[in-house]
Amino acid sequence: MSQLFDTVALIGIGLIGSSISHATRRAGLARRIVGAAKTEATRATALRLGLVDEVFANPADAVKEADLVILCVPVRACGPVAAEISKSLKPGAILTDVGSVKGSVVADVGPHVPAGVHFVPGHPIAGTEHSGPEAGFAELFDGRWCVLTPPPGADNAAVDRLRSYWKGLGSNVEIMAPDHHDMVLAITSHVPHLIAFNIVNTAAHLERVTESEVIKFSAGGFRDFTRIAASDPTMWRDVFLTNRTAMIEMLGRFTEDLLHLQRAMRFGDGETLFRMITEARHIRRGIIEAGQDTAAPDFGRHQGGSAAPATGQKS
Amino acid sequence: MSQLFDTVALIGIGLIGSSISHATRRAGLARRIVGAAKTEATRATALRLGLVDEVFANPADAVKEADLVILCVPVRACGPVAAEISKSLKPGAILTDVGSVKGSVVADVGPHVPAGVHFVPGHPIAGTEHSGPEAGFAELFDGRWCVLTPPPGADNAAVDRLRSYWKGLGSNVEIMAPDHHDMVLAITSHVPHLIAFNIVNTAAHLERVTESEVIKFSAGGFRDFTRIAASDPTMWRDVFLTNRTAMIEMLGRFTEDLLHLQRAMRFGDGETLFRMITEARHIRRGIIEAGQDTAAPDFGRHQGGSAAPATGQKS
Repeated sequence: MSQLFDTVALIGIGLIGSSISHATRRAGLARRIVGAAKTEATRATALRLGLVDEVFANPADAVKEADLVILCVPVRACGPVAAEISKSLKPGAILTDVGSVKGSVVADVGPHVPAGVHFVPGHPIAGTEHSGPEAGFAELFDGRWCVLTPPPGADNAAVDRLRSYWKGLGSNVEIMAPDHHDMVLAITSHVPHLIAFNIVNTAAHLERVTESEVIKFSAGGFRDFTRIAASDPTMWRDVFLTNRTAMIEMLGRFTEDLLHLQRAMRFGDGETLFRMITEARHIRRGIIEAGQDTAAPDFGRHQGGSAAPATGQKS
Repeated sequence: MSQLFDTVALIGIGLIGSSISHATRRAGLARRIVGAAKTEATRATALRLGLVDEVFANPADAVKEADLVILCVPVRACGPVAAEISKSLKPGAILTDVGSVKGSVVADVGPHVPAGVHFVPGHPIAGTEHSGPEAGFAELFDGRWCVLTPPPGADNAAVDRLRSYWKGLGSNVEIMAPDHHDMVLAITSHVPHLIAFNIVNTAAHLERVTESEVIKFSAGGFRDFTRIAASDPTMWRDVFLTNRTAMIEMLGRFTEDLLHLQRAMRFGDGETLFRMITEARHIRRGIIEAGQDTAAPDFGRHQGGSAAPATGQKS
């Protein structure tokens, strides 16, 4: 892949920002990567790991020479950061983000985008349960999808260039309207996370089963929920607050379906339960066939201990 | 480990039965393993893979010379199988099972156990999302817990021998009352599975998001639920029907907690959401420290494709 940008600015250097850096360097997509991070610790780590060539405390300083600016901060931080950098953005630059909710980013960032800067919101659908600049790795986006939600009348050349960049990072790219993106992500990501956080907390507050029993016997399925539930609190709080309309709609369906199954259990309706279980397996096969997961038996986790760690990943 | 039994009979040769065979041979715990399976296909596979030295269609034929008989069939099949083998069990033999619900197994199997046979129900808390005789591997039980629920007045020597056997298979062993086991497993395994099956079905039946979108964008968290939801339908239907009392109690708590979070979202209560997410991470750390999961970043699945398959596992 050839160089697409001279200078890329990463505003926020956590799991996603650091992975973008690794993947940008892997493919040689930029001559120079600069970054901004709020804490001194993150700035030091980013320099030490070579994630950025230069790092700033103030995002406005980082964006001055950048032809691509990527907001890699929690969703509700995007608006305030956009206000801070607004006057420093270079004419002709592309401004994008990686937020999991697009409607709120469009609403919060849009008003701060100066004329001559191309705002193309984005969302790479990839992640791990780890956070921070040391959690990133170059392969995170390989074979995953990145959704771009360009506003009506967006500059085609800018959209195409950002699309090429994400392809260079390893992703497939899809264009979508922000509202539809938020609906799709509510069911494929946001509600599953809320449910995972919720059941972990339900388990922690039972009177008849102790927390140490929950931990000890978690291999029966529960630990898979705790893995999702290990994700970053600020990021997820922001998602839950900004995508609440779509999520509450999906949660209504989820609860209705769950009560239906609970009733089938209560009245011994094995046929309904069997049919529901069988249908769920069908979707699982689709996901493996689409290359979005592997069929290796993960519950056993018998390979977990010996798996080789990726570059820069937390131990 | 030295030999503990002359002949072990596996009634049912699926994921658990075949894994017991692999682990028994690995540790040299039995001179001979015989088996019974309903279908000709499973019997042929079990012989071909060397899982059993001899295989029978009729469980009663398999148990005649066994000093350890392990029922490895779905929970609701345990009673009928016990009735079939009752008259063929060898005096002094130990009869156990691997069912995920213990109250119903005690109630269904107990009445068929003849005098002189030691009935000690058991449940290895381990598994993968794959089923069948080819899914088993020797390491499945390593470091996991096996719960034994001996009835009041059970023969101590028999319980000790079965405990040694499970330790030989790689497990830790815990003794528990059947009712408490069922309560612990409701929250650590049964409710998580029901929820996983349920959300997969909710996603499949939405009007505003297509099934292909759900599959394509599943890497945001949803695919982890589909992994759990890929498990065996008959086994899980039986669990849901036989442990419904404990499960309905736990589901009541889960739904109450979920509505609490939904309300926090609706009214923009970020503090409640943040606290709940942070608490969930604490439990996750406990599970990793207890050795019941690995901290390797699984969402990224970047190691999935290259992981070495275990013996006899499905590709």
